[in-house]
Amino acid sequence: MAKVFIIMGSKSDFPIAQKAISVLNKYGVAYDIAVASAHRTPKRVEDLVSGSDADVFISIAGLSAALPGVIASFTTKPVIGVPASGSLNYDALLSIVQMPPGIPVAAVGMDRGDNAATLAVEMLALSDKGLAEKLCEDRKAMAAKVEKDSAFVVEEARKVE
Amino acid sequence: MAKVFIIMGSKSDFPIAQKAISVLNKYGVAYDIAVASAHRTPKRVEDLVSGSDADVFISIAGLSAALPGVIASFTTKPVIGVPASGSLNYDALLSIVQMPPGIPVAAVGMDRGDNAATLAVEMLALSDKGLAEKLCEDRKAMAAKVEKDSAFVVEEARKVE
Amino acid sequence: MAKVFIIMGSKSDFPIAQKAISVLNKYGVAYDIAVASAHRTPKRVEDLVSGSDADVFISIAGLSAALPGVIASFTTKPVIGVPASGSLNYDALLSIVQMPPGIPVAAVGMDRGDNAATLAVEMLALSDKGLAEKLCEDRKAMAAKVEKDSAFVVEEARKVE
Amino acid sequence: MAKVFIIMGSKSDFPIAQKAISVLNKYGVAYDIAVASAHRTPKRVEDLVSGSDADVFISIAGLSAALPGVIASFTTKPVIGVPASGSLNYDALLSIVQMPPGIPVAAVGMDRGDNAATLAVEMLALSDKGLAEKLCEDRKAMAAKVEKDSAFVVEEARKVE
Amino acid sequence: MAKVFIIMGSKSDFPIAQKAISVLNKYGVAYDIAVASAHRTPKRVEDLVSGSDADVFISIAGLSAALPGVIASFTTKPVIGVPASGSLNYDALLSIVQMPPGIPVAAVGMDRGDNAATLAVEMLALSDKGLAEKLCEDRKAMAAKVEKDSAFVVEEARKVE
Amino acid sequence: MAKVFIIMGSKSDFPIAQKAISVLNKYGVAYDIAVASAHRTPKRVEDLVSGSDADVFISIAGLSAALPGVIASFTTKPVIGVPASGSLNYDALLSIVQMPPGIPVAAVGMDRGDNAATLAVEMLALSDKGLAEKLCEDRKAMAAKVEKDSAFVVEEARKVE
Amino acid sequence: MAKVFIIMGSKSDFPIAQKAISVLNKYGVAYDIAVASAHRTPKRVEDLVSGSDADVFISIAGLSAALPGVIASFTTKPVIGVPASGSLNYDALLSIVQMPPGIPVAAVGMDRGDNAATLAVEMLALSDKGLAEKLCEDRKAMAAKVEKDSAFVVEEARKVE
Amino acid sequence: MAKVFIIMGSKSDFPIAQKAISVLNKYGVAYDIAVASAHRTPKRVEDLVSGSDADVFISIAGLSAALPGVIASFTTKPVIGVPASGSLNYDALLSIVQMPPGIPVAAVGMDRGDNAATLAVEMLALSDKGLAEKLCEDRKAMAAKVEKDSAFVVEEARKVE
Repeated sequence: MAKVFIIMGSKSDFPIAQKAISVLNKYGVAYDIAVASAHRTPKRVEDLVSGSDADVFISIAGLSAALPGVIASFTTKPVIGVPASGSLNYDALLSIVQMPPGIPVAAVGMDRGDNAATLAVEMLALSDKGLAEKLCEDRKAMAAKVEKDSAFVVEEARKVE
Repeated sequence: MAKVFIIMGSKSDFPIAQKAISVLNKYGVAYDIAVASAHRTPKRVEDLVSGSDADVFISIAGLSAALPGVIASFTTKPVIGVPASGSLNYDALLSIVQMPPGIPVAAVGMDRGDNAATLAVEMLALSDKGLAEKLCEDRKAMAAKVEKDSAFVVEEARKVE
Repeated sequence: MAKVFIIMGSKSDFPIAQKAISVLNKYGVAYDIAVASAHRTPKRVEDLVSGSDADVFISIAGLSAALPGVIASFTTKPVIGVPASGSLNYDALLSIVQMPPGIPVAAVGMDRGDNAATLAVEMLALSDKGLAEKLCEDRKAMAAKVEKDSAFVVEEARKVE
Repeated sequence: MAKVFIIMGSKSDFPIAQKAISVLNKYGVAYDIAVASAHRTPKRVEDLVSGSDADVFISIAGLSAALPGVIASFTTKPVIGVPASGSLNYDALLSIVQMPPGIPVAAVGMDRGDNAATLAVEMLALSDKGLAEKLCEDRKAMAAKVEKDSAFVVEEARKVE
Repeated sequence: MAKVFIIMGSKSDFPIAQKAISVLNKYGVAYDIAVASAHRTPKRVEDLVSGSDADVFISIAGLSAALPGVIASFTTKPVIGVPASGSLNYDALLSIVQMPPGIPVAAVGMDRGDNAATLAVEMLALSDKGLAEKLCEDRKAMAAKVEKDSAFVVEEARKVE
Repeated sequence: MAKVFIIMGSKSDFPIAQKAISVLNKYGVAYDIAVASAHRTPKRVEDLVSGSDADVFISIAGLSAALPGVIASFTTKPVIGVPASGSLNYDALLSIVQMPPGIPVAAVGMDRGDNAATLAVEMLALSDKGLAEKLCEDRKAMAAKVEKDSAFVVEEARKVE
Repeated sequence: MAKVFIIMGSKSDFPIAQKAISVLNKYGVAYDIAVASAHRTPKRVEDLVSGSDADVFISIAGLSAALPGVIASFTTKPVIGVPASGSLNYDALLSIVQMPPGIPVAAVGMDRGDNAATLAVEMLALSDKGLAEKLCEDRKAMAAKVEKDSAFVVEEARKVE
Repeated sequence: MAKVFIIMGSKSDFPIAQKAISVLNKYGVAYDIAVASAHRTPKRVEDLVSGSDADVFISIAGLSAALPGVIASFTTKPVIGVPASGSLNYDALLSIVQMPPGIPVAAVGMDRGDNAATLAVEMLALSDKGLAEKLCEDRKAMAAKVEKDSAFVVEEARKVE
C-alpha cells in the first residue's frame, strides 16, 4: 500500500504538517511522520529516508531549509518541499526550489502543507484509480464551495453603502 | 505506456523545453509537446489538457506565468511548473509556486527544464521498476562525475599562485 | 447602461471588494459581483466572463493571482487587477502586472479596490458626461479634504515639544 | 475622434513608446506624443495634460517614475503607466502602481508599451464597435500564431537528442 | 531667519512629522508645516513651494511617494525625502531616492523624520555658527548616552543564565 | 570659499566621482577628492574628515557601503552618500540610507554622482546667491532640453509603422 | 584565557546579546560586553576594540549595521556579525555580509545571537580540547532533543482529523 | 600544522576557490580541496568531512547552497560559506546564512572566496603568532594601496571637464 513520509525540520513546523495530515486522512493515504534536522541530525535523515518504504516524501522546513534537498539526495522517490514562512520572506522558498540539475525537489507555496499532500496524492493516483476518482470528486466539491461563497458575497455586497 | 506532456507558454521557452526533452529521451519516456498560452489561447489549453492521456504535465512559463496553474485547473494529474527567468527575477517563480489550497503545482528551479523532467520520471517510476533502477544508476553516474570533477579541481588548484 | 463586474478569487477578498463597491455606489454605477477561482473553477470563470454584458472587469486575487489574466483571456473589455497582500509581498502584484504582449491587465496598488473602481469609472466616463463631471467634483472634494487635514496638522504641530 | 496621448519622461524611453505606436497604428487610433518630465518640467506636464483633448494617457517612466501619477493628478481621464526597466528592478513599477486612494494609475508590465496601447484601445472600444471587433480579430490572430509556433516546436523537439 | 518647510502627503504621516518637529524645536529652527498631496492637490504643492521662503524642504510620503520629487521640481532649495513604511517595503524608498539626473532628493531612512530634521539643521548650520555648535554638543550628548546604555547592559548581562 | 570633499571607498568608484566633478566644475565649486576605505583605512577616514575644511561631504561606496555613515560619524557637516551598483541590487543603497537616529546621511540614487553634486551645490547655495541663480538657470536649460527632445521624438514617431 | 567581546550598536539589541551570553555561559567562555555605536561613538569603538584582549568579537547591529565592519577595520581577530531584524528585511544582513576584499566579517542569521556565540566557541575550540569536546556533546544533546520532538509529533499527528 | 579544507559544490565554482587559494598561499596555510555535492554525493560530503583533519572548512555553493550547512552538520569545526552569485540574487546567500540555532555557518559576501580565506586565516591566527603578524602587515599593505589609489584619483580628477 502507498505511503507518504512527512519529515519536518523542527517541531515548530507541526501546524504545517497538520494541514498535510488532514488531506492524507481525507484520502485514506497512509503516512509516517518524523522530526529530523538536516543540520542537527544528518545521520538520522539518511537513516529515516534510506530505511523508509514510502513512495513520496513531504518535507517542511524554514530558514535555510536544506532538509527537502538532503532528503532528495538519499532517494529517487519524489520529494515535495514546503517552505515555512519566517522573518526573511524568501529564504526557505529559494533554498527549496533552487536545486541543482539532477536532484529535483517539488516546491509548493509558503506554508502549504495541504498542497504538498494533494500533490503527493496526485502522484500516487497515477497508479491508483480510487485516488484518481476521489481527486476528481474533490475538485467538484471545491467548485461547489466557490459557488456557495459567491452567493454569500452577493448577499454581503448589498449591505455595502 | 506512461507519457509526459510538455506545454510551454511561448516558442521562446523552447531552450528550457530542450533540457526536459533530453532527460525524457535518456529515460525513454514518451512525451507530447505543444505551445499554448493561458492568456492568448485559454480554450486551447483546456482542450489540450482535457484531451490528453498524459500522466504528468510539465509547463514552462515566464512573466505572470499563469500557464502551470491553469493546466492544473483542468487536470488532477501532477503538474510541474518551470519558471522562465526574465527581467523581474521573482515574477514567474512566485506566480507558479504560490497556488491556492487544493490545486498544487510542483515548482522547480528557474529555467530548470531538466529537473522538471527528472521529477516527472521519479513520479512515473513509482509504478515502473525499470525507470526506478535507471534513476538510481543515474545518481551513481552523477556521483562519479563529481569525483572526476574533484580530481580535475585538485590539479587546477596546483596552478594557482 | 454601463456595468462593472467584480470577480474575486476567494471569499476572503471581500474587504477589498467592499472598497470597490463603495466607490461604484457613490458614482451610481451598476455592478455584478461573484466569487470565481481561476484554479478551482476555470469553466465558471469562462462562463461568467463570456456570458457577461459588463463593460469593465475588476478582479481581486492574491497569491499566484492568475484570475485577472484568465479573465482577460476571455474578453477584450478592459480588465483591472487588484493584488491582495499576503505573506510574500510581491507575488500577487507581479502575477497580475507581468502579462504577455497582447493581453493587458491594468494593475492598481496592493489591496486598492477603491482605485480599481475609480479607474473603471474613469473608463466609463469616456462616454458618459455625467460620470466625467462627478469625477471632477470628486477631485475638488479630495483637494478640500487635504486642506482641512492640513489645518488640523498645523494645530497638532503646536502641541509637539 | 478618440485620441491617445503618449508622454514619456525621457527621450531614452522611445523604444518603449515605439511598441505603443505600432499598436495604435495597427488599430488606426490617433495619438499625440511628447517628452515631458515630472521633475524637470512640471509646468509643461500640467500644460500638456490640461490642454489636451486626449481620451486616454499613456505614460512611460523609469527610476522614481512620478510622471504617470503626476499626469493623473491633472486629469480624470484614464492614465496608463509603463514602468521602464533599469538597474533596480522594482523602482519604476512600485512608483507607478502604488498610487494613493482616489487617483488611480493603470500599471502594465515592465517595458510593455504594446500592452499599454492595447489597454488604451480596449478602453476606447467601449464606445467604438469597430475597435471592439478589431480587438476580437486580433485575439484570433494571436491564437493562430500560437498554433503555428506549436507546430514549429513539435518539429524542433524531434531534433533534440 | 532660516526656516524649514515640512510637507506631508497625508495626515496619517503626522507621527513621522512629529519626530522632525521635536528636533527642529530642540535646535530652535523655525518651520512651516502643511499637508499637500502630489496627486490630489498638485496645484497646492506648486503654490506652497513656490510661495515659500523656506530654506530647506522636508517631505514625508508613503506608497508611490511622488511628493518629495514634485517639491524638488518647483525649487532649487534642498529637498529631504522621508519614506513612510507600508505593506510593500521598498515602494516609498525607491520612489524617493531614484530621482533623475539634475533634480536630486536627499533620502533618509524609513520613517526617519528625526534624521530629516537633523540633516536640515546640518545644512542650515553651514551659515549659522550657533547651530553648528549645538550639533557638536548634541553628538557629545549622544556619545554620553551610549556610554550610559553600555553600563546598563553590563549590569543586565550579569543576570543572564 | 565653499568646498566639497568627495571621498570614494575604492578607485573603481571613480566613474561615479567623475559625474560629481563635472557638476562641481560647471558651478565653479571647489572640491577635494580622495580614496579612503572605512574598512581598510579607518584612521585615514577619520583624519581626512576631521582635518578637512569642506562644507559638504560626498561619499561613494558599494557593497556594505559603510563609508558615508562613518564619515558622518566624524562630522556634523552634511554628508551625501552615493550607492554604487553591484551584483546584489539593494546592498549599498540600504547600507547608506538606513542610518540610526541622530546621524543622517543624505542618500541619492544608484550611481548618481551628478545628483550628489547638485544636492551639494543646493546646500551651498543657501548662503551663495550666485550659485542659487545658476541653479535656477540650469533648471531652465533642462526644461529647454526636454522640449528639444520632445520635438525629436515627434519626428521619430512618424517613422514607426 | 580565551575571551569574546560582544559589542552591540544599541541597547535595544540586548535580547539578541542575551542569546549569545547564554551560549557562552554554557561553555564557560569569558566575555566582555558593551554598547558602542559606529556612528554615534566612532572613537569609542576604536578604543574598545584596540584596547581589548578578546580573541573573537561578536557584533550585533540593525539598520545600516556598519558596526561589525568597523570593528573588523580595527582588528585582525575574527569578527562575527549578527543582523538585527527591522522593517526593511535585508538592510542589516546585506550591510554586514557584503564586506570588501581583505576585511571579512562572518555573518550569521537574522537575530541569531546564539549561533554567533556557538561560532565563536568553535573558533576558540581550535586550540582548546575541552571546548571541542563540549561542542561534540552538545551536538549529541541536540540530536537527542530532535528524537524526543519527533516522538511528540508522532503523538500529536494521531489527534489530527 | 593547521589546514583549511575548501569544498565546492560544483566544478564551476572554481574561480571563487581560486581567490581563496591565492590568499591561503600568501599566508602559507596548507589546504585540501575537493568537489562534493550535498545533493549528488551526500555520502561523499560526510566521508570527506568526517575523515578530514582540517581546522576550518570553506564551502562554496550556489543556488539552494545546502553544502556549507551540510558540512557544518558533520563537524564542530568552523565552517565558512561563500554564496556563489546566479540569476536569483539572494538564493545562495539566504540558504547559507539562515542556519538554525546550534549549527552556525559563517557567511561571507557574494563570490568572496578571498574573504573566506582571510577569515579562516584569522581563526588560525588565534593560536599562531606568525599568522597574526602577517595579517597585521597585510592590513598595512592594504592601507598603503588605498593611499596610492587616492593619489591616482587626484590626478585623474584633474582631467575631468
